[in-house]
Amino acid sequence: MFTENDIVKEVPPADGASVRHYVLLMAGGSGLRAGGGVPKQMRPLNGVPMLVYSIRAFRKENVSSKIILVLNDSCLDDWKRIQMEFPETEGVEVCSGGVDRLGSVKNGLKYIRETYDAPGNVFVSVHDAARPMVDVELIRRGLETASRNGTAVPVVPEVNSLRECVQGHWQSADRANFRVVQTPQIFRFDILEEGYAAEMRPEFTDDASVCEAAGYKIALYDGSPENFKVTEPLDFVMAEAVLKAKADI
Amino acid sequence: MFTENDIVKEVPPADGASVRHYVLLMAGGSGLRAGGGVPKQMRPLNGVPMLVYSIRAFRKENVSSKIILVLNDSCLDDWKRIQMEFPETEGVEVCSGGVDRLGSVKNGLKYIRETYDAPGNVFVSVHDAARPMVDVELIRRGLETASRNGTAVPVVPEVNSLRECVQGHWQSADRANFRVVQTPQIFRFDILEEGYAAEMRPEFTDDASVCEAAGYKIALYDGSPENFKVTEPLDFVMAEAVLKAKADI
Repeated sequence: MFTENDIVKEVPPADGASVRHYVLLMAGGSGLRAGGGVPKQMRPLNGVPMLVYSIRAFRKENVSSKIILVLNDSCLDDWKRIQMEFPETEGVEVCSGGVDRLGSVKNGLKYIRETYDAPGNVFVSVHDAARPMVDVELIRRGLETASRNGTAVPVVPEVNSLRECVQGHWQSADRANFRVVQTPQIFRFDILEEGYAAEMRPEFTDDASVCEAAGYKIALYDGSPENFKVTEPLDFVMAEAVLKAKADI
Repeated sequence: MFTENDIVKEVPPADGASVRHYVLLMAGGSGLRAGGGVPKQMRPLNGVPMLVYSIRAFRKENVSSKIILVLNDSCLDDWKRIQMEFPETEGVEVCSGGVDRLGSVKNGLKYIRETYDAPGNVFVSVHDAARPMVDVELIRRGLETASRNGTAVPVVPEVNSLRECVQGHWQSADRANFRVVQTPQIFRFDILEEGYAAEMRPEFTDDASVCEAAGYKIALYDGSPENFKVTEPLDFVMAEAVLKAKADI
């Protein structure tokens, strides 16, 4: 898609000892598509609001990671209620979401820049709050990949056949040539910032595509099949079952 | 992918009154990838073997549809045990699977041809036994689409970003241009038979791609998000939760 970029920028490995980790937890959407009144990222799964699972996972990976919740302003009251009830969310910072997903990430980066004047050896995980099945192993795989390459995007194989729209016609596409992208997508701060400094294009569907357009090679790491995005009503049922099973493991 | 076929063959709508419906229920794989010893299509979900859910759905749609289970011979004993325990499987016929999925469908078609000398107004649903969440509404949407177009393939939007391998590099692909393909894929018998009479190519991943290569336009119909393929160990947990929720609806 971005074949116009012939130059791939070199990224040296990070110095592991001094790496700092920021997490942009993306809960910017109103998330009403999934039904139920409350924005989906706030809705309980087995009694715990969806976004709390991600906070727990990133805290478990490293208690000193900065977590910044990128939130639609209309959800602030819901968030305050959650903070009272779930003390493990203490210290999570909040930043206003933008008009869309890319705008929200941009806001989050600006927040980091203004609050922390983020220096070179900083990594940013961009994670969908709608993926509550993220866990420590996944995050560690991502951070390791990002520290070696500057970028890290989790993927899983496509298990379904695909159809692709080519010149107005839906045609078979060979699924072996595709990977399904998840989050957390992890980047060196300055790479992500550079990517988002450019003008956004309609074909940018995630942070990886933004950084790729800025000339960076995207390193892939193994996602996990259960780290799916909770979107449809029955996804809540599935997520609850998986979270229960993971708690039992 | 099959742009070499400029000729799209005309398919007149079927005469609804005399349509007959055969179901090839594909359980040919050994399905051991998902773990647990027993082939996955035979493993219980909430106490009922996975493939029995599909049999129930197709029977519920029309009790007189012929269901032909395409099975790996090594699973025959398991199947016999299931038949004794679940009387709703009575009348389901069995045909040997091939070396791969396409070979199994080919065997199924040959079985229909030899057993029933399938005439013109016959439709064949090819359905993965690993998709136990299929239901009557989905099947009806498919049959309606197939009777109007000769072909019918259920799709859902891609909710994840995708990466595509282009000349050895993984690049962003715009998910808006993709649909995720499910089953049942439904075809007029003679169209499917014509497709499978050709030499199989490595890029054929499903029945739609086979028929497309034979010059038929593939009609799409709305799949359902929960009609996912049970593949990974945690998919069993999700499928049980969804099947329980659907039973409650």
